[in-house]
Amino acid sequence: PGKAKDKIFDVGKSVKKLGKDDPRRVIHSLKVGLALTLVSLLYFWRPLYDGFGMSGMWAVLTVVVVFEFSVGATLGKGLNRGFATLLAGALGVGALHLSSLFGKEGEPVVLGILVFLLAAAATFTRFFPKIKARYDYGVLIFILTFSMISVSGYRVEELLEMAHQRLSTILIGGTTCIFVSMFVCPVWAGQDLHNLIASNIEKLANYLEGLLRTRKLIAGFGCEYFQASEDKDCIEALKNDKSFLNGYKSVLNTKGTEESLANFAKWEPGHGRFLFRHPWKQYLKIGVLVRQCAYQIEALNSHFTSDIQAPVEFIRVIEESCTKMSSESGKVLKSLASSIKAMKHPESANEHVENSKAAVKDLKTALEAAGMGDSDLLAIISAATVASILVEIVDCVEKISEAVHE
Amino acid sequence: PGKAKDKIFDVGKSVKKLGKDDPRRVIHSLKVGLALTLVSLLYFWRPLYDGFGMSGMWAVLTVVVVFEFSVGATLGKGLNRGFATLLAGALGVGALHLSSLFGKEGEPVVLGILVFLLAAAATFTRFFPKIKARYDYGVLIFILTFSMISVSGYRVEELLEMAHQRLSTILIGGTTCIFVSMFVCPVWAGQDLHNLIASNIEKLANYLEGLLRTRKLIAGFGCEYFQASEDKDCIEALKNDKSFLNGYKSVLNTKGTEESLANFAKWEPGHGRFLFRHPWKQYLKIGVLVRQCAYQIEALNSHFTSDIQAPVEFIRVIEESCTKMSSESGKVLKSLASSIKAMKHPESANEHVENSKAAVKDLKTALEAAGMGDSDLLAIISAATVASILVEIVDCVEKISEAVHE
Repeated sequence: PGKAKDKIFDVGKSVKKLGKDDPRRVIHSLKVGLALTLVSLLYFWRPLYDGFGMSGMWAVLTVVVVFEFSVGATLGKGLNRGFATLLAGALGVGALHLSSLFGKEGEPVVLGILVFLLAAAATFTRFFPKIKARYDYGVLIFILTFSMISVSGYRVEELLEMAHQRLSTILIGGTTCIFVSMFVCPVWAGQDLHNLIASNIEKLANYLEGLLRTRKLIAGFGCEYFQASEDKDCIEALKNDKSFLNGYKSVLNTKGTEESLANFAKWEPGHGRFLFRHPWKQYLKIGVLVRQCAYQIEALNSHFTSDIQAPVEFIRVIEESCTKMSSESGKVLKSLASSIKAMKHPESANEHVENSKAAVKDLKTALEAAGMGDSDLLAIISAATVASILVEIVDCVEKISEAVHE
Repeated sequence: PGKAKDKIFDVGKSVKKLGKDDPRRVIHSLKVGLALTLVSLLYFWRPLYDGFGMSGMWAVLTVVVVFEFSVGATLGKGLNRGFATLLAGALGVGALHLSSLFGKEGEPVVLGILVFLLAAAATFTRFFPKIKARYDYGVLIFILTFSMISVSGYRVEELLEMAHQRLSTILIGGTTCIFVSMFVCPVWAGQDLHNLIASNIEKLANYLEGLLRTRKLIAGFGCEYFQASEDKDCIEALKNDKSFLNGYKSVLNTKGTEESLANFAKWEPGHGRFLFRHPWKQYLKIGVLVRQCAYQIEALNSHFTSDIQAPVEFIRVIEESCTKMSSESGKVLKSLASSIKAMKHPESANEHVENSKAAVKDLKTALEAAGMGDSDLLAIISAATVASILVEIVDCVEKISEAVHE
């Protein structure tokens, strides 16, 4: 029994965490309950029930299936469902009419062949990436409605009345969903995409600036790099920064999320500071560049675990410019992130881009000027790599900045 | 009209391409058509129709909604649907019973509250990552069935008979789906996952070996690196290798696909060379390592575009060991990929791992031995980075090899 108690406690904790991480989840759950209860009124309210009869259950079905987390997804599914039902309904009636020309015997055969052909063709279209992204659900409903009509219509004579009832209940269900999701604490996919991109840029900035902080503590290339495990301040700082430093890892795998958010966002009407037809594609472009930068950081990060220590003279040569490169590109990203958040033109970013480019130049001159002395190559190589990846990062950051300016 | 013709032609071409890229897509479309036609027999065949009546349409609905590309996904959806319907049905009957205790007036209120609470709670569980991954569809169906029963049951007296009909038609639809997807040219998610991992490893191997091929053409660090645009052979080879060299890019973003395939694979019974409860998790582990290696390659790749030329003396120092590192780790990956494909223990991989480690050591000794002369640091740094990233790659490859051995 103690174990069961522990388990319940664990579940409770994770429920609380889920709710705390994003309170909109709790609100969403309540919204689904609300929409369902609203639609149930159809049944409970006698005058309405007499009008719709059994097909009122289609309203319930529509609400459960169509209601999604964001407004865009709900709108997309609702519109897909509506149009697909209409189109399939029209085609289904056509198919029934066509098959009736073949007499009592031929009718089921013709209908069977039609269902087979249309279902196969429609299923195939679902493999087109563009259709999959935006109309997948519509195609599914199209197949569903078409086969149900052409199969059931064979028996039931009152097809048109049924269609009328079905459509109006779906309309009621869909409208309820869209209404509740848009006007009760709406979650906009576009806003989410916007925030995701800004927070991804910020995570990279945190990494680049966090690198600097751990590095400043001791003269040299940063305590993580030196593995100066004796230095207590450094260890402390490292621990605090670990979460900062690892934040960028989540950026590596956001491609799928970004794309689906952008797809949902395309369905949304203008909201808040976003107009209809906001350039959502631009966000995807920035997302690609941000991820490229994250890959570089991943490579950079793995070099901090290598155990070759660079000689102090060499560190001194590259230290200043490396520090500057990482801090300035961090600042560029920070200012880009905050300008995205505020939806303003990034003012200070350009200046920092120039600074970071200057740092790259400084590094080059410093390296050219420095004699090697007798320090061996092996010792240098790892530190040199860090410097050179930083140069690449500066490059990436510049590209991101350009993309944001567009 | 010319434009419309072009467009139709374009669509035709892309249909052909889709089918050619993966002929299983065409087969899948035909399978969906087949399953739907089989289920339609329910309607056309009079004795059966008399037994099921209108609820035969639930069989059609089940087929359209449950039939998925792979066996695992279909089984997962089918089982989810079946169990969720049963559970929700039982709970729904219970809810009806409970609410009937509250009299004519209280009944709809109690039912409304119950629907609201259960829908909200069930929707919230969909946010748990584990439930989302495996039981998302089941929870959806649970909400659907529960609210439909508790709402419609308020009116319709013949609930139990309806439930019986509904369940048996869902059973028929589900069984048809599972039968068709398992026995007509089955697509196993597990097999797909297996192939995906092997082909990802192979892509990285191709990159590492392709690097070598372009490099061999001229003595030095490879023509791409030197930007020896005068050398015709080299340019030619580069062009041929471009697709090879870019193959690894698709590895960067396969995380989502791998995870969903692994989830589907867990639903599948033993098939071919895979037993039930095959260690699918191990594939995800390998996938993570492979992606880590791909990130390094991405970083490496971006260094080939940098325009600093390294002095020939330095190239000579690192050339041999770098060549060896990349070719040997390429070989490791090749042998791992082929051993995964054949599901054998990788024999030759260990040897190549040792070779590549030896190459790393060689590099270190070569660097230690080499005097720097007057070649400046700036010129060296980029080549040195390449070498040092290669060292990291060797490390990654070793980890992948270990994971595969498990």
